[in-house]
Amino acid sequence: MNLSSRAEPIKLGILGASGLVGQQMLRLVMQRRWPLGELRLIASAKHAGQPWEVEGQRGVYLEASGQAFRGLDLLLSSAGGPVSLKWLPEVASAGVLAIDNTSAYREDPGCPLVVPEVNAHELDSMELGQGGIIANPNCSTIQLVVVLAPLLREFGLAQVVVSTYQSLSGAGTDALAAFEDGTRRAMAGETRDLPASVLDVLPQIGALDEAGHSEEERKMMTESSRILGTEISLDVTCVRVPVRRGHGESVWIETREEASLAQVLDILRSAPGICLAEGEDQPTQAGTAGDLDVHVGRVRGVSGSRKRFQLWIVTDNLLKGAAWNAVQIAESLFVRV
Amino acid sequence: MNLSSRAEPIKLGILGASGLVGQQMLRLVMQRRWPLGELRLIASAKHAGQPWEVEGQRGVYLEASGQAFRGLDLLLSSAGGPVSLKWLPEVASAGVLAIDNTSAYREDPGCPLVVPEVNAHELDSMELGQGGIIANPNCSTIQLVVVLAPLLREFGLAQVVVSTYQSLSGAGTDALAAFEDGTRRAMAGETRDLPASVLDVLPQIGALDEAGHSEEERKMMTESSRILGTEISLDVTCVRVPVRRGHGESVWIETREEASLAQVLDILRSAPGICLAEGEDQPTQAGTAGDLDVHVGRVRGVSGSRKRFQLWIVTDNLLKGAAWNAVQIAESLFVRV
Repeated sequence: MNLSSRAEPIKLGILGASGLVGQQMLRLVMQRRWPLGELRLIASAKHAGQPWEVEGQRGVYLEASGQAFRGLDLLLSSAGGPVSLKWLPEVASAGVLAIDNTSAYREDPGCPLVVPEVNAHELDSMELGQGGIIANPNCSTIQLVVVLAPLLREFGLAQVVVSTYQSLSGAGTDALAAFEDGTRRAMAGETRDLPASVLDVLPQIGALDEAGHSEEERKMMTESSRILGTEISLDVTCVRVPVRRGHGESVWIETREEASLAQVLDILRSAPGICLAEGEDQPTQAGTAGDLDVHVGRVRGVSGSRKRFQLWIVTDNLLKGAAWNAVQIAESLFVRV
Repeated sequence: MNLSSRAEPIKLGILGASGLVGQQMLRLVMQRRWPLGELRLIASAKHAGQPWEVEGQRGVYLEASGQAFRGLDLLLSSAGGPVSLKWLPEVASAGVLAIDNTSAYREDPGCPLVVPEVNAHELDSMELGQGGIIANPNCSTIQLVVVLAPLLREFGLAQVVVSTYQSLSGAGTDALAAFEDGTRRAMAGETRDLPASVLDVLPQIGALDEAGHSEEERKMMTESSRILGTEISLDVTCVRVPVRRGHGESVWIETREEASLAQVLDILRSAPGICLAEGEDQPTQAGTAGDLDVHVGRVRGVSGSRKRFQLWIVTDNLLKGAAWNAVQIAESLFVRV
């Protein structure tokens, strides 16, 4: 994309700038040479006042306050739901466009929930220079809908079953540090054994609701239908696995129309944002960390049916699953300006 | 069970006795105080001649040979498919009953493929004192059919979709050691980062066939229908995760008859070999390692349907997934003697 199509430099704020996603937002904005008029990094009280320096720009981390947000054009926000709920209404009223990576506004009908490859048209009412809140979807949802959207459009979807393999970075800086420290301490000892409590698979992410779905599962079901623009029958089990970065998803679909495997592969090959692995090398979480694409592999027809297929989806949860999707949303607005 | 119902002490051989599963077979036999008349531990040439001592019994590891097997009543075998193919026909012809944990005889219609909770009746033609080969199923298959069998019997199964979370011990001693050594080396360095190549999720176990299924997936599909005694529509994605021990399975089922969640829970609660987790604590791989049961959690109705359910299954792949199932098979034969 051509960012120079925007004449005015952007006054950008990043809220939650010291977190795992905030750091990736900053890195992407720099790498992609956004025309920045101003850059304010806003973080928790713990970091406020500490200096930062990035690619020749420097400053000190600010604590969130009315003044910290004043005069911004755009705020990329990823400091947790309560922080977003506290500040974004005021920020949006003051004319700042906020792209929020928390779950705070994802079910708010007044806030578009957008994956640019799927429903960029929902940004039509939003503009830089006018205040508003755009919600960035849940990480596991984003990579799923990028793949489901073209299949839904072409063949319809009668049923989707997903099991996730979500990395520890999805649980934030502290969880990741605890995992690494626990593993390091154990490995420094005399024992051959890694600690059971560190290397485990946890089949529940977030509290269970009355129906028995976890918070993460509920997010995926609710958000996917909203982004795809139609109610789909989607059953999900969300599971945490001991990898640092990247989320995997094992996906089973039943289409409404019959399709050949070749047709499914054709659709995926030409769909935006997807990198299709067609050889023997399957995309893995460690192998695709740092990459912006949604990687798809293990595509195959199953059940001896022309309507049932299985596939494997993996992407970097900190990038396409969070920071990169937010940055893409912002860039699609620049282009229109 | 009452092993004292058997008057004659058993002459037992364990083939592959130095491996991960062989060691668990030995441990179980000792813990359960089998009436052993003789115990021969048979291993690869690398271990042959080395001494062993277990619970007051001692000996040296033998290399496989006609003499090593001669006069045994029972052989528990877990030294890899090629070793089984080489020795078991001769061993069985010589009057030894072999329970084989490899995939060598699992598709042989002359060899029962048995999970005692599901199809113990297929052992009716087998007897200690008469030669023969009984196949122990694949680890991931065993834990699945223990759970599917009672549901199939009660409600029928129209479709089953499974994604596995299989531990490194399923890949054998060397894979497990490589993982632990790689992690230890990385943690001894200065970096905060764990090595990507060590902590990763691998969405393929074994070579892919023409239809795109991996060897492990094909085993689960073929073996499950054989053990359950009916062709079931089962679609599987097998995935390796970086945990040491225990396999998890995320399972989605569609029943033929309508069922309430309460009915499904009732069936699972009273089924043999299953430990049903009904509270907030979900069974995990590290949390259930060393346990003989198949643990089931996250049971819930989905899709707003009275025919669709999801659940989480986990068991120790070295125990119920291998050594314990083989020992159970043997014990069910003792009782009949």
